[in-house]
Amino acid sequence: MSDDMLEFGRKVLASQPFSVLLGTELVAFAKGGAELALDLRPEHLQQHGFAHGGVVSYLADNALTYAGGSVLGDSLTLEYKINYLRPAVGRRLVAKARVTGSGKSQAVCHCDVYVLDGEAEKLCATAQGTIWKVG
Amino acid sequence: MSDDMLEFGRKVLASQPFSVLLGTELVAFAKGGAELALDLRPEHLQQHGFAHGGVVSYLADNALTYAGGSVLGDSLTLEYKINYLRPAVGRRLVAKARVTGSGKSQAVCHCDVYVLDGEAEKLCATAQGTIWKVG
Amino acid sequence: MSDDMLEFGRKVLASQPFSVLLGTELVAFAKGGAELALDLRPEHLQQHGFAHGGVVSYLADNALTYAGGSVLGDSLTLEYKINYLRPAVGRRLVAKARVTGSGKSQAVCHCDVYVLDGEAEKLCATAQGTIWKVG
Amino acid sequence: MSDDMLEFGRKVLASQPFSVLLGTELVAFAKGGAELALDLRPEHLQQHGFAHGGVVSYLADNALTYAGGSVLGDSLTLEYKINYLRPAVGRRLVAKARVTGSGKSQAVCHCDVYVLDGEAEKLCATAQGTIWKVG
Repeated sequence: MSDDMLEFGRKVLASQPFSVLLGTELVAFAKGGAELALDLRPEHLQQHGFAHGGVVSYLADNALTYAGGSVLGDSLTLEYKINYLRPAVGRRLVAKARVTGSGKSQAVCHCDVYVLDGEAEKLCATAQGTIWKVG
Repeated sequence: MSDDMLEFGRKVLASQPFSVLLGTELVAFAKGGAELALDLRPEHLQQHGFAHGGVVSYLADNALTYAGGSVLGDSLTLEYKINYLRPAVGRRLVAKARVTGSGKSQAVCHCDVYVLDGEAEKLCATAQGTIWKVG
Repeated sequence: MSDDMLEFGRKVLASQPFSVLLGTELVAFAKGGAELALDLRPEHLQQHGFAHGGVVSYLADNALTYAGGSVLGDSLTLEYKINYLRPAVGRRLVAKARVTGSGKSQAVCHCDVYVLDGEAEKLCATAQGTIWKVG
Repeated sequence: MSDDMLEFGRKVLASQPFSVLLGTELVAFAKGGAELALDLRPEHLQQHGFAHGGVVSYLADNALTYAGGSVLGDSLTLEYKINYLRPAVGRRLVAKARVTGSGKSQAVCHCDVYVLDGEAEKLCATAQGTIWKVG
């Protein structure tokens, strides 16, 4: 069942041209949470060689939507807030999102974004948002 | 002087590989505000044919940083919050950011993101964030 | 009609024991916006003699709800974010909220909170939130 | 050492007239986290008999500041965002805050607010904010 969810989630991701452009992968997707990741490439960076904030927040936003969608079904991000904690320097970004609370039509979710560099995994951003059931 | 700022701001933007990837333009940049825009391309979309939320929030985040930087100098986004108001369907996104209040080391900025479709300009997202002076 | 709204809004405020405890007044209430105010008393302060952040954010939150309610009818604050810009030192707080965008069931609103001291009116906080129609 | 922190934190709380007005208690205070609580009284409510959102967000805001202060020393809330998850109906509110990440001058903290009713403890709000070291 969870494998079906993961397969379904990957199809949705593959149908998002922007996610394909960035090379995003759905690593995990199950009721209550989701994990998205992408390998950092030169075109993801800003002028100081870090991952651009826009890449970090894209990944957080998308992971929040997946987490909320895991309990709500087809849904979208109504709003979110993100704090950047440190420059995202490394080879890969991983966003881990979870449902903190949910009702019939909305879910409040949190997401932590980590940057991987060698063996180390460092928290580089944290986000909180509201996911809304479509229709 | 403002022309110098605009020229300088465009150089910074051109040095951000992610902004180059997305085709972002700096339309206006002067003390207290900034305007960024990009023409929507197929690779900016999500599965329903709208601009991906990640594109909208990237543009808002970057415009907030420019607005804050216009009064603080070299700076970065510490955190921001964005509300999506309607699907971004159209041919061009425009993000207009302004400084709401600032001190020596931080500025609080707001940004409205519009989608242009034909003659109409529609508000599709609004953001509030904290910009931090570097160093 | 707007006078009826104001009168109605004041009845609602008078039925909130917490607002009565704090001495909040509804100064203006019309389609698209609301203004709440309170005279600062010693019991509103924190340890440095400023208005407690909790008083400032209470006023912002409540003004956001009134603004949203002016277009949605009976409603509540789903979430909001507030930035404190300067210590609230003065004799009176005024929160001015407006609807930035709205649909059938939600409104996104902004609110600026000012502190009055003598003749001067200074911006001390700014907030953005989502208001949700009840029922 | 942690007992000294708790004692110190309680003195700070007792010097906040607004916290005294609301009857807030500092339940726990140690490096990395803080817990604040208050017994709900009739004057804390809004028109539907729930704790007023202003009381819930006051408690979250204050707990975030304590959590950040536990690693930064004297500090204040720069900004925060709160999602209300359910009406706060019960006899007591408890806000549990923790440091998610921190640097020399700022800490990013999260806080969950629970309402206690009989034996049950229910999550009624969740918040994320930036705490700033003073001076």
